[in-house]
Amino acid sequence: MSGNPSRELVVELGERSYPIYIGEGLLAGFGRTAEKHGLPKKSPILVVTDEKIAPLYLERVVASLREAGYEAASHVIESGEQAKRLEVLGDVVTTALETGLDRDSTIVALGGGVVGDLAGFAAASYMRGVRFVQAPTTILAHDSSVGGKVAVNHPLAKNIIGAFHQPEFVLYDTETLRSLPAREVRSGLAEVAKHGLIKDRAFALWCDENAEKLLALDPEALAYALYVGCGVKARVVSQDEREGGLRAILNLGHTIGHALEAVAGYGELTHGEAISIGMCGSARLAEKLGVAKEPVYGPTRKLLAKLGLPVALPAHFDTDAIMEAMMHDKKFRGGQMVFVLPQEIGAVDIAKGIASTLVRDVVESLKQGESE
Amino acid sequence: MSGNPSRELVVELGERSYPIYIGEGLLAGFGRTAEKHGLPKKSPILVVTDEKIAPLYLERVVASLREAGYEAASHVIESGEQAKRLEVLGDVVTTALETGLDRDSTIVALGGGVVGDLAGFAAASYMRGVRFVQAPTTILAHDSSVGGKVAVNHPLAKNIIGAFHQPEFVLYDTETLRSLPAREVRSGLAEVAKHGLIKDRAFALWCDENAEKLLALDPEALAYALYVGCGVKARVVSQDEREGGLRAILNLGHTIGHALEAVAGYGELTHGEAISIGMCGSARLAEKLGVAKEPVYGPTRKLLAKLGLPVALPAHFDTDAIMEAMMHDKKFRGGQMVFVLPQEIGAVDIAKGIASTLVRDVVESLKQGESE
Repeated sequence: MSGNPSRELVVELGERSYPIYIGEGLLAGFGRTAEKHGLPKKSPILVVTDEKIAPLYLERVVASLREAGYEAASHVIESGEQAKRLEVLGDVVTTALETGLDRDSTIVALGGGVVGDLAGFAAASYMRGVRFVQAPTTILAHDSSVGGKVAVNHPLAKNIIGAFHQPEFVLYDTETLRSLPAREVRSGLAEVAKHGLIKDRAFALWCDENAEKLLALDPEALAYALYVGCGVKARVVSQDEREGGLRAILNLGHTIGHALEAVAGYGELTHGEAISIGMCGSARLAEKLGVAKEPVYGPTRKLLAKLGLPVALPAHFDTDAIMEAMMHDKKFRGGQMVFVLPQEIGAVDIAKGIASTLVRDVVESLKQGESE
Repeated sequence: MSGNPSRELVVELGERSYPIYIGEGLLAGFGRTAEKHGLPKKSPILVVTDEKIAPLYLERVVASLREAGYEAASHVIESGEQAKRLEVLGDVVTTALETGLDRDSTIVALGGGVVGDLAGFAAASYMRGVRFVQAPTTILAHDSSVGGKVAVNHPLAKNIIGAFHQPEFVLYDTETLRSLPAREVRSGLAEVAKHGLIKDRAFALWCDENAEKLLALDPEALAYALYVGCGVKARVVSQDEREGGLRAILNLGHTIGHALEAVAGYGELTHGEAISIGMCGSARLAEKLGVAKEPVYGPTRKLLAKLGLPVALPAHFDTDAIMEAMMHDKKFRGGQMVFVLPQEIGAVDIAKGIASTLVRDVVESLKQGESE
């Protein structure tokens, strides 16, 4: 491991509690961390990563595992959201079987949210569940790697086939973030900002003030933001592991955001871009419904724009298609539309039974995207 | 429901406990049972069945649900083990999305073990888990419908992608068994006999004495056998939900049996036929290793033969291929061969670290299949 100080926080889930390690150069000590957490050495470990991450960090992880006495194999998937499908899950299982993975084995996700979701569902379902470790390499994954939600997509809906499967630990090497393309940095900062917007007003303001440093990947600012962001996520997950209630607040911006991603065919918009537009939509909806106790649309829009994120919907998006996609979203229970709405910056509420005509108006208004 | 007495037993799993109802004509009261168990009416129910069962019982179940005020849809899969694949899971999810299934919905498995495993894994993974009900229509499914193990196959291994997902209840209409082909009756009786062989000596003897009645589908004998068989399974599952230890005894005959099914390409042998040969193999192995305290091969072979099941391995099976398939079996932990071995009729033990050369000898000897 590096000599730099690393941060640690714990996701409290009783016997399924696990730590998140955040710091520079942690991947080099992967094997020792695996050892510390008691991952069995008699069973092979499978590292799943994608074709972009593999040439950068795969060898480092595999070498570290082997140095610690593990048998380590790897499986490289295509890069991008389209890899989150059942067929690719089948490919991972092929490698797992050919490598001899057994019930005491561990599957490691080395990569962003796509790798984490796919490899996580493989770990949840291979032999009805084996150990799982997350090693996120994107900012966005500070969100997806915490909380145990794993899934693949279906052509008709995102994340619709999945499980809750908590990792043994999350090892977050911030060095890997330096290789991120600028667009992915911005996309990841959307979820960082979200954690401020839903539960930490001071952090939301800090993000607004430090937007330039974050976009420039200033190590200190970034490590702090990830630590606080993961901390918000961890506290919410601790209180509601299986999304019975509170955890739904993490979906701020996601109802509209997922629909935008589905309509755009999982490519035109990154996840962060989609939820950035979605969070602007939620803020508008909150103001229209009188849920907001203070202006929320203006500050939300300003923060996200400073982070280089889109705050308006491209005009060519078909509103009917977006509404249709929302009806397929798994956050709809019993046919009612449910939204997470900001009451103020740093606090949200869950609103049920919202009229779809009102949602439609808001989606239309996002095509202008101007301050009201 | 019919006026005939129905039996009921409970799988004790704390807050996940559920009842098994066994009786003639229960399907006609499906809707009322759903109501009694509090399945929400505002969310649609999806009944998954196969092309053989659909024309016989699907309308009865759907009508009963609608009569009770439920919105009920159905999805019909191809018949046979080859339906247990990821692609078919994707098809079920397509119907679930198109039907508007949400988190409060229920997926019902109406059929044999294949339907139960596939629909059960759909219920376990759709939106990360929705309610599930089992309505078995085969004798074999008296085993698979109890205990919550659900899965699909992979070309390289059976049941390798799955979950533990307990049903809300199991509704076992014994009337459906009358339409079973004779070969499936025999196949199902293999698991019935297994429950006697592992944990209930008196029941094993009763099966031997009542083999003809069982093969003739005598209603009283059959209902009793299913009740006792489900009861053995339920007691084992109650003590070990996630197969940490004891539950492994349910795998008597399955190590060899699964390998035979894999090598035969999931078709030449039914599951029951494969485990019948496998149980003969386990008994031989137990005698060779001195684990058996009394003769077990002879009585096991006699019982299974009386039930019309194969007790010898067809000579054309390739022993190398069988051994290779066993190495992929998920019951191997850390490379050791693990077997469930009879100590006596009605009691088994789990033996680890068995030499593969000895297993090979036993597999070879099964090609003769004579009493020793």
